[in-house]
Amino acid sequence: MSELSVNHLLGIKYLQKEDIELIFQTADHFKEVINRPIKKVPSLRDITIANLFFENSTRTRLSFELAEKRLSADVINFSAASSSVKKGETLIDTVSNILSMKVDMVVMRHPNPGAGIFLSRHVNASIVNAGDGAHEHPTQALLDSYSIREKLGGVEGKKVVIVGDILHSRVALSNIFALKLQGAQVKVCGPKTLIPKYIESLGVEVEPNLRKALEWCDVANMLRVQNERMDISYFPSTREYIQLFGLNKAMLDSLSKKIVIMHPGPINRGVEITSDVADSDQAIILDQVQNGVAVRMAVIYLLASKIKQ
Amino acid sequence: MSELSVNHLLGIKYLQKEDIELIFQTADHFKEVINRPIKKVPSLRDITIANLFFENSTRTRLSFELAEKRLSADVINFSAASSSVKKGETLIDTVSNILSMKVDMVVMRHPNPGAGIFLSRHVNASIVNAGDGAHEHPTQALLDSYSIREKLGGVEGKKVVIVGDILHSRVALSNIFALKLQGAQVKVCGPKTLIPKYIESLGVEVEPNLRKALEWCDVANMLRVQNERMDISYFPSTREYIQLFGLNKAMLDSLSKKIVIMHPGPINRGVEITSDVADSDQAIILDQVQNGVAVRMAVIYLLASKIKQ
Amino acid sequence: MSELSVNHLLGIKYLQKEDIELIFQTADHFKEVINRPIKKVPSLRDITIANLFFENSTRTRLSFELAEKRLSADVINFSAASSSVKKGETLIDTVSNILSMKVDMVVMRHPNPGAGIFLSRHVNASIVNAGDGAHEHPTQALLDSYSIREKLGGVEGKKVVIVGDILHSRVALSNIFALKLQGAQVKVCGPKTLIPKYIESLGVEVEPNLRKALEWCDVANMLRVQNERMDISYFPSTREYIQLFGLNKAMLDSLSKKIVIMHPGPINRGVEITSDVADSDQAIILDQVQNGVAVRMAVIYLLASKIKQ
Repeated sequence: MSELSVNHLLGIKYLQKEDIELIFQTADHFKEVINRPIKKVPSLRDITIANLFFENSTRTRLSFELAEKRLSADVINFSAASSSVKKGETLIDTVSNILSMKVDMVVMRHPNPGAGIFLSRHVNASIVNAGDGAHEHPTQALLDSYSIREKLGGVEGKKVVIVGDILHSRVALSNIFALKLQGAQVKVCGPKTLIPKYIESLGVEVEPNLRKALEWCDVANMLRVQNERMDISYFPSTREYIQLFGLNKAMLDSLSKKIVIMHPGPINRGVEITSDVADSDQAIILDQVQNGVAVRMAVIYLLASKIKQ
Repeated sequence: MSELSVNHLLGIKYLQKEDIELIFQTADHFKEVINRPIKKVPSLRDITIANLFFENSTRTRLSFELAEKRLSADVINFSAASSSVKKGETLIDTVSNILSMKVDMVVMRHPNPGAGIFLSRHVNASIVNAGDGAHEHPTQALLDSYSIREKLGGVEGKKVVIVGDILHSRVALSNIFALKLQGAQVKVCGPKTLIPKYIESLGVEVEPNLRKALEWCDVANMLRVQNERMDISYFPSTREYIQLFGLNKAMLDSLSKKIVIMHPGPINRGVEITSDVADSDQAIILDQVQNGVAVRMAVIYLLASKIKQ
Repeated sequence: MSELSVNHLLGIKYLQKEDIELIFQTADHFKEVINRPIKKVPSLRDITIANLFFENSTRTRLSFELAEKRLSADVINFSAASSSVKKGETLIDTVSNILSMKVDMVVMRHPNPGAGIFLSRHVNASIVNAGDGAHEHPTQALLDSYSIREKLGGVEGKKVVIVGDILHSRVALSNIFALKLQGAQVKVCGPKTLIPKYIESLGVEVEPNLRKALEWCDVANMLRVQNERMDISYFPSTREYIQLFGLNKAMLDSLSKKIVIMHPGPINRGVEITSDVADSDQAIILDQVQNGVAVRMAVIYLLASKIKQ
């Protein structure tokens, strides 16, 4: 396979296994590039990319912006806070306007699930979903799988548990799609009210007990507790959450084997994981961040190749 | 004519007909450039431009920023929200400071009419007015005329009606100056309380009836209803506005000839024009946006040539 | 001396006299560069710099950003207003994340004194302090000394008075360190409640009378009155401040010699100094701003040389 099967990255749901392999092989190359003294390639000098963030997200925006600049693309940034969206304009009109300025690709974070899919049907540009509500966050799932592959030599057959608020998490959903597509085994662990009913239909088992989940897995992906995203009545108190689903060093050390700890960030130290877990040599949290730039370079590069055809 | 008669673009009022012709010929060249795969020219590698936006304006700022980057200028952005203006500094001090950092050109949006003119008398840099209160928005008028010229082969002798809140609109005023200078016939149409008393002294007729106005014209420029800009007591209710001055497809189709529909954006769909009008093949709204980048490249390029002398 | 004795610029306190000389010689070169038509050098094409501003500061951020771009570094901007800091992440986590994206240098403005020092002990990147609370603002002090050297031929032996709120001013403290290190004589002048008790331990005399201070000095650095930074009960009313410590043209002209007037900006015209003083030929306020870009280019260039080793 030498090109993606899709023209947009709207969700992992729409990818084939070979797409993920191609993205990872391309990311291997770019990871080597960004470890050189000059971290840039001139590949996309002819591409203009607009980053449209209708929700704040410093780390994702910076990661995309660095990826784009290291590919030598022209970059413009747009954030909702200062936008004509507030003046009542529709999403399609806002984006159509930006595209009329000869923009080739749109990286979009939006609070509404499906915003990118909707847009891809109405505008003539390549769309990269940088998070759409509780739906998908495909580049996060790709960088997570890429980091597992880097650490453990592959994803196929690996046992991954995702811990936390599965119900509201686009990171969880995209990870589940990506991991299953690559042949990993996936369990989820979290408060019962925060596990969606449809989860088993995705081929995912629920393990309510954290210790059992950790004993089973090779990798634990500890989701951020996102108080801002949920109806508070669903949720145990933070103290209860920590007692039942927080991971500390004592528990980590008591497991029968060394598991890999992941976190999509930003970390609430002392909630999802304690500081000594976050900073332990089993955590690959900063590798995830570094790989994020290489994976995003790969996604953008591969989508841009399809535009140029 | 091979150079502009002015050192700043403060308003259409200060231009000669030949200036507009020169800008349009130069924009023709840049429009061809931005339709190439590599949309950049190295012309202004030696120019630093500061975009000073004391008022939010996503689309105008993005259009200027793309124009500047495609000319290879160095660009810095400054928005009032995060500025020392809030610390009580005067406009001249703020801009003088930025210019001391060896900035050659200032693109400024400011809520006060005449802010650019005032500044041009006190600082040593080329000033481009990107909208000053209810006064002028010259690049908008230039891109509007350029789009008429592109669609209809020229501006001279064409009949243009501007519909809406003429009183508070810098777009209307700049368009009137530009159109009259190029020999177009201009009428305005809108609520009586929103037509300024001096309008006839500009050689513009008032036509209070929308259907009559549309029957007369070749081009209708449908202004945005800007609730945020007006004293609400001047204004009919939105429902009354739509009934009297909103354009729908039935009315458009009932006219005796096909007229061109323009809108400066952002559109309030269902207010100034209905969605089927905005998306019809008579509307050139997205052409206006695309031409905006080429026209702004031309203005910046021509003003920069004068700096370099 | 061909390289700095430090790997970070955390404060003037940590510099040697030879560091300052090296920075100034390097700044001489860059000042010549930014007065050329093409104001750029390709020196730092292999360096990525993150500007992290946890406090608003338009002029300092623009100055750093221009310095970085004129060195051809890759630049990313991060401001607290739109950051995950609001989501409860720690400073070290925020910065570690950004550095994992292969960022080489961090320019940081932070409200907490010592934030840069703390960070330099925990992350692997070169840190430039762009102001940390009431502690230090080293590049401001360097550009101030550089401007004195440019105007008067040197700093050694010169008499400098710093006027205003010394207690809360990082500009004052960094200037005192820089001036003393270079062999200048320093006095401070201001309301008694705004002079810190330790000031004489720094080898600085207090002169409570403005006229006497000005008669004594070669250079007066008139600090900005920062109402936003102080507990209001410490402070005289603005009217009292102007009467006792404001400088007007009549007083300036009545002095027995022509002194140099400096101000770090933004100016409260009519408070610290009147408009005719700010605009007089004795004021070098805009030279300070211009020199700021060259001095910051020098600091960044010299720190980057140490990274590359």
